[in-house]
This record gives sequence, structure tokens and C-alpha cells, in this order.
Amino acid sequence: MRHDHIISAKQLSRGDIEEVLDHAAEIAADPEAYTDRHAGTLLGLLFFEPSTRTKMSFSAAIKRLGGDIVDMGPVEYSSVKKGESLADTVRVVEGYADALVMRHPSEGSAQMAAEFVDVPLLNGGDGAGQHPTQTLLDLYTIRENAGLDDLTIGIMGDLKYGRTVHSLSHALTNFDAHQHFISPESLQLPRSVRYDLHEEGATIREHTDLEEILPSLDVLYVTRIQQERFPDENEYREVAGEYQIDAATLEAASDDLTVMHPLPRVDEIDHDIDDTDHATFFEQAHNGVPVRMALLDLLLEGQR
Amino acid sequence: MRHDHIISAKQLSRGDIEEVLDHAAEIAADPEAYTDRHAGTLLGLLFFEPSTRTKMSFSAAIKRLGGDIVDMGPVEYSSVKKGESLADTVRVVEGYADALVMRHPSEGSAQMAAEFVDVPLLNGGDGAGQHPTQTLLDLYTIRENAGLDDLTIGIMGDLKYGRTVHSLSHALTNFDAHQHFISPESLQLPRSVRYDLHEEGATIREHTDLEEILPSLDVLYVTRIQQERFPDENEYREVAGEYQIDAATLEAASDDLTVMHPLPRVDEIDHDIDDTDHATFFEQAHNGVPVRMALLDLLLEGQR
Amino acid sequence: MRHDHIISAKQLSRGDIEEVLDHAAEIAADPEAYTDRHAGTLLGLLFFEPSTRTKMSFSAAIKRLGGDIVDMGPVEYSSVKKGESLADTVRVVEGYADALVMRHPSEGSAQMAAEFVDVPLLNGGDGAGQHPTQTLLDLYTIRENAGLDDLTIGIMGDLKYGRTVHSLSHALTNFDAHQHFISPESLQLPRSVRYDLHEEGATIREHTDLEEILPSLDVLYVTRIQQERFPDENEYREVAGEYQIDAATLEAASDDLTVMHPLPRVDEIDHDIDDTDHATFFEQAHNGVPVRMALLDLLLEGQR
Repeated sequence: MRHDHIISAKQLSRGDIEEVLDHAAEIAADPEAYTDRHAGTLLGLLFFEPSTRTKMSFSAAIKRLGGDIVDMGPVEYSSVKKGESLADTVRVVEGYADALVMRHPSEGSAQMAAEFVDVPLLNGGDGAGQHPTQTLLDLYTIRENAGLDDLTIGIMGDLKYGRTVHSLSHALTNFDAHQHFISPESLQLPRSVRYDLHEEGATIREHTDLEEILPSLDVLYVTRIQQERFPDENEYREVAGEYQIDAATLEAASDDLTVMHPLPRVDEIDHDIDDTDHATFFEQAHNGVPVRMALLDLLLEGQR
Repeated sequence: MRHDHIISAKQLSRGDIEEVLDHAAEIAADPEAYTDRHAGTLLGLLFFEPSTRTKMSFSAAIKRLGGDIVDMGPVEYSSVKKGESLADTVRVVEGYADALVMRHPSEGSAQMAAEFVDVPLLNGGDGAGQHPTQTLLDLYTIRENAGLDDLTIGIMGDLKYGRTVHSLSHALTNFDAHQHFISPESLQLPRSVRYDLHEEGATIREHTDLEEILPSLDVLYVTRIQQERFPDENEYREVAGEYQIDAATLEAASDDLTVMHPLPRVDEIDHDIDDTDHATFFEQAHNGVPVRMALLDLLLEGQR
Repeated sequence: MRHDHIISAKQLSRGDIEEVLDHAAEIAADPEAYTDRHAGTLLGLLFFEPSTRTKMSFSAAIKRLGGDIVDMGPVEYSSVKKGESLADTVRVVEGYADALVMRHPSEGSAQMAAEFVDVPLLNGGDGAGQHPTQTLLDLYTIRENAGLDDLTIGIMGDLKYGRTVHSLSHALTNFDAHQHFISPESLQLPRSVRYDLHEEGATIREHTDLEEILPSLDVLYVTRIQQERFPDENEYREVAGEYQIDAATLEAASDDLTVMHPLPRVDEIDHDIDDTDHATFFEQAHNGVPVRMALLDLLLEGQR
């Protein structure tokens, strides 16, 4: 894989994706073989926004490779508060680390920052923009549980604002995937995303009702519908309730259905599913470690 | 020692306690022998409440064993703010670490969390509940300085609300300890704790005055009396003043008296004691490292 | 180098400074030779105030030496909030680490803290007081780019309140440096600093205008003029504008001019300089790592 930076899932070819997922599978199968692989390597963490799982799993990933982190800490305690520009901050911090992970509230900030640094920069989420390592761990989880070819996937919830969903849908166009989108009308895919998927030759269908499509799904990817998207709380409750699932809902599903969620969830997946074979969302979160290990390893090796 | 999780000092038998303390003494005597013992092991830190010494000494402990931490960071910067349940958070984070330490404001939370995870979970304090590693380092400090058998100990200050005190008192019932409780009447041991100690066959006596019992003590364990326990500031000042000690107070004590305090202190122990042989509270805090190293080592070994 | 603690640049002789800078140059030339040098060593981080570059570069420095950190974290999350004294905090934390770095808002706090601990303590900035590692990395950067002997340096901006500037000026009196101070009249060197420099036999000249001295400079060290120093915003704008530099300004400078800044900058150095050979401020920040590695190494070796 020859990339200087990882900014967007869109920059990754099918070959790139398969290289990362294959390598993640190798690592997951024999993690002991990688414990000293990047001894002495420092990963700089620049989280300008809160994060639990992205930050912790990047930390775990570099440490499982024998390296370590150098953490800027919460932005309230950094010189960003003194008015420093993002470009200056990353140019300083690249001197303290061998690679950088950045999360920032502004869309496009990762691309901008990457232009100023010589060390590899990984986008850990840039506002409404991209979050490529989330997409890679989603793809890895789908491949491990249902396969990426001849896949029938339902993607449900907030399809209008969900960057995770847009990025995953786009990445799936590299594979033989039938994509079904399930949402209330007000939260359907934006026209630009729908257009983009058609351009890529994707087979997509849109639904307002899960019931009609559920039995045919290999994977159901659930995202949260946020109350602040609705002007009226009652309307929210009515709509959101239709896109919550529980064990009863899944009686109509295939026994092999894989249920995913980027987490955190609030109430869109009932806890009565947690101990069923369908529940794959914790495994999905845990897959963040081998996938990020694989990506870091390939990126750092590519620099040598 | 066969425990999956360390939730409460009460779960530890005399044999368990002695195993931890013996091992801590071995480690303290030859720390160099343990520097690679848990190389590659990651300890997840889930501190939902502020902590200096518990968090730092657990960090030091795993690092002194060759391992490392993966830190959730302040809860304000975590997905807990997005409404994630504690059960979900721990199920995600267990995928990033080989063991977890959790501090949480709710009593019972550590027990609840432990039911959801497969990796060992150590309770670093659950509100008004338990803080077992504090008890173990207290016991270790007592044993090193005065011995746990044929011990006469005075426990002074806020005995009503002090979880540290309740836990230590209970643990001491495993040994031949004479326990004296010194406090204002309004802050005496709760009836339930007193009953519990009697049930365990403890020899206890209660006092409102330190003077009468001080000369016979091997150990004086001081805790802070908090102003917010009193409706009236004047009443607080009057009462608290009687339970503060300084060098003059200790003239009546045995030369061998060991003075302990869980820290932080405010003014209940005067600084004029700090350089005397009595002062053992900094040593007590420092003992957190070998004791937590011993506990982590035994727990992680037990998992293999 | 025989120092128990590093509190102030003033405690360092010319021999001490050269030992640190020489060692930093050795480390920078062959960092691989130092990756295990302090394996197992823990550096305690006590940052009572925000910091990006000092904290991150100390973290990177100890990790590049094979060691690790134990971080108190933001003070809001520490027992300092419970009213603990600084003396107690450092006495507790020294039990968790082999050396300490402290930043604290109160001038004199590092000296005070050092009196309570047995492990080496490094001052990472004490309010309006000292910040010796900043001075060392400044000196290292000057030596690498222009040499410390027969040096003509201009120091511009807020010379009244800038502790960085006072400390650097004092340190330069150990070398054959001609110091020019450029500032508005209201922000000239305090009389005490001017007196101190004369006492040390320094050759200094003061200017209100950069133009007259710029062509003769080997180094131009720029600091920020803060708006809050002026009662009136218009007065600030007028004055500050005269002490901002850009590519046009530097046309009158020597081709070899080295432009430095302790960062973060706001607008006192225009971005059009960033890609010129003059710009040395990012290199300067990056030099924090080898310089702090050198200092930590010498200090820890000196303890053995």
C-alpha cells in the first residue's frame, strides 16, 4: 500500500482495502508475532474532539505493535487555546512523533493538516467529513461475519447526516454488495450520496420499513436517529420507535443475520439482543484494534 | 489466588490477603526482577471520577511490570457523554485491554461492570462502596511497620461515612487486631458496620477522646472530618479541632507509633509530624505501587 | 553534570550548558543508540497548567530513551482539587516515578517542590519564573544554526514580561554574544534584568526599531506582544504592527538570518516566511526532544 496519509476511505482502492483486511486477519490470528514490530515508534494523538473508542483503540493498536503514544490531551489544556493555528500545531507535533492521528470538528481539516506534515497522518474523524478507519473496521467485520461478496446489507437509521454510513456505502461499491437503505423519509440518503453511489455502479434500494427487507439481509447495520433532527419531540418518538430493533423484531430475520452498530447506542438496539448470535457490535468495536494495527503497520512500513 | 475480579476487600480471605502482601514484599525487595514480567500487557483505565494516587499508582504498577495503560481519559471527553451505558462502555473497552481498573461514583457499579466483561476487573473505588486496593496497601503498611498480629490500632476521624475505614476494619478481623475507634459522637461507626465487626468476632472499642487510648496504640489511622457533615460551621470547627494531631499530641504516644492517613490530608495532621519517625502516610501512598503490582501479577497469572 | 534538580537556567554554568548541548547533538545524530538507555524509568508529569509542547516533548524524550511517563492529568481531575498542598502532592507522586517534571502557575513553586523530594525534579515552567529547558533548546537551536560565539542576536517583542527572553538573555552572557533588544518603549527590558545583564558583563543595546539593526543580525528571536498589555486596543494594533515580520521585512536581512520564536505565534511572524530558509521556529520546537533527552539522560546518570 503506497499512501503517505490516510484521509478518506475514498482514497483506498479495492486492492488497498483487501491488503488492510488481510493483514488485520493475519494479526488477529497471531498477535504475539507483532508485539515488537514497531518498538520505539511514537504515535502522536491530536484529538480536538472527545473520543473513547477511536482514541483508545489507536492507543491499543500502536502499543500492541510495541510502540507508544504521545498525547496532546484535551484541547482545553493545549496551546490551541492560545490561538495557535492547526497548521502550526501539527507542524510542531510532527517533531514529537513518527505518525499522527487527528480528530477535529472541521470537515476537511485532516486533508489540510496532512499538507503541512512529513510524517504519516491518519484521519480519526473530521467533523461531518471522513472517518476511514471506522469504515475499514466495518468492512473487516462484515467480511469476517458475512463475506463482502454476494452480500445483502441493510443500513438503517439516520442516513441523511451519518458520515459513517456514507463512507461505508461508498466503500461497499468496491464489492459485490446489494445495499438496502432503511430510514424515515426525512432522513433518507442525501441526493449527492445517492448520485455518487449510482455513479460507482452500486445496486441500491431505499425503504421506509425494515419488515419487507429484513428476511433477505445478511447484515443489518443500525445507526442512531438523533432527537435534535426533529423539530417536535412527539414526531421524533413516533419515528425513532419504528427504527429500533429487539429480539422480537429479529424473529423474522435469517439465523445468520449479523447486526452491527458503530456505537455508542442509546436505545435503537435493545439489550435483549446482546447475548444472541446476531449481536456483532462489540466484536465490531474490538476489531478496531487489529484493523488499526494493520493500517499502522502498512503505513509505517511504506515509509521505510 | 483464584479470583476473576477484585471488587471488594471482603471477597479476600486471610490467605488471599497474605498472598498479596507476601508477593508485594517480594516485589519491593527486588523490583528489577519484575520489569519484563507482563511485557505487552495493557491495563485499561476507566476513571469516571477524579483520582490522583489510585490512577497514577496503577499506571506505575503496570508499567513497572513491563506493561502499559490504555486510558479512557476524563469522562467529559468520552462517549459516556453521548449517553452510553456503563455496561456498553466496559464491553467495548475490554476489547482494548487485558485487564481493567474502574473508578465510578455509583456504589455497586464495579460489581455490575464485572458481570459484563471477561477480562479481570479491579475496583478502584465505587462511590460509597469498596476500594479494595486501598485496604490492601493499608494492611501492607501496617504489617511492615507494626505487624498484623497482636496489633492495637486506633482509627480516628469520620467513622460514619469513611468507606476506607469500614473496609480496613473488616479486613482486620482476619487478624489478631484490637481496634479502637475515635470520633465525635455524630460521626461514630454506623450500626451496620459495628454489627458486622461483632459478627466477625472483632475486638472493638469506641472512644470520643484520643488521649485515653493513644499511649497503648501501635498504629493511629487518621481520616479527615469533612465540614459538609456539620450543619453549622462553628460546630465543625470545635469538633474537628479535637481530632487533629501534631507533634505535641504525639508526645504521649509510644515511640514506635505508626501514623497513617489515606491522603489527601487538609489539616488533620500537622506538618510538624512529617519528619518524625511516626509519619508513615507518604510511605503508605508509595506502597500502592508494590501492592498493586502484586495484585495485578497474581490476577494476570491466575488467568493464564 | 552534578545537579539534583533543574530549576533555573541560571544554575547552569557554561560547562553545564555545553555538556547538555553536546550530548543533545550526539543524540540527534544517532537516536537509535539511545532507545533502551532508560528502559523501565518512569517520568512523573505534574502539569498544573496547560501545556502542549513542553508536556509532549518531555513525553517523547523519556519514551525515546526507552522509559515511560506517569501523568497526573489535568489538575481538575486530581486530588489538588480536594485541597491537597503542593508539598504533599509531590511527596506522594515521587513514590510513583524516578524523576518529575512540574509546571505550576506560581513563581518559585519548582524550587519549593524540589526541597520536598528525593528524585530529580525538572522545572517545566513556574509562572513568571523560570523555564530552563526552553532556554536550553533555544541555545541548542542558536548553536546549530548560527553558533554561540561571535553571535549577533536580536530579541524582539515583549521584553518586559517575557520570561523566555529574560532567561535566554542571561544564559547568553556565558557566550560571546552581542544582544540587541527591539521593542516598543512600554515593553522594554525591566530595569532589574538590564542591571543583571550588565553585571554579567553582557554587551547589550536597545532599539525601538528593527530596521536599523536587522542587516547585522545572525539570529532574530521574535516573541509575541499581547494585547492585554495595552489599555487601549488601537494603541495595541499600532504598536504590535511594527513588530510583525514577513518576507518583505526580511529582504533587508542577511541570507543566513535565523528566525526563531518560542511558539505559539499568532500573527507576529507571517506565514510567507514559513518555507524560507530563515524559518527555524519549528526546528526549534522539535529540538525540545533531543535537548530534553540529553538533560534527562545526564540527570538520571548523575543519580546512579
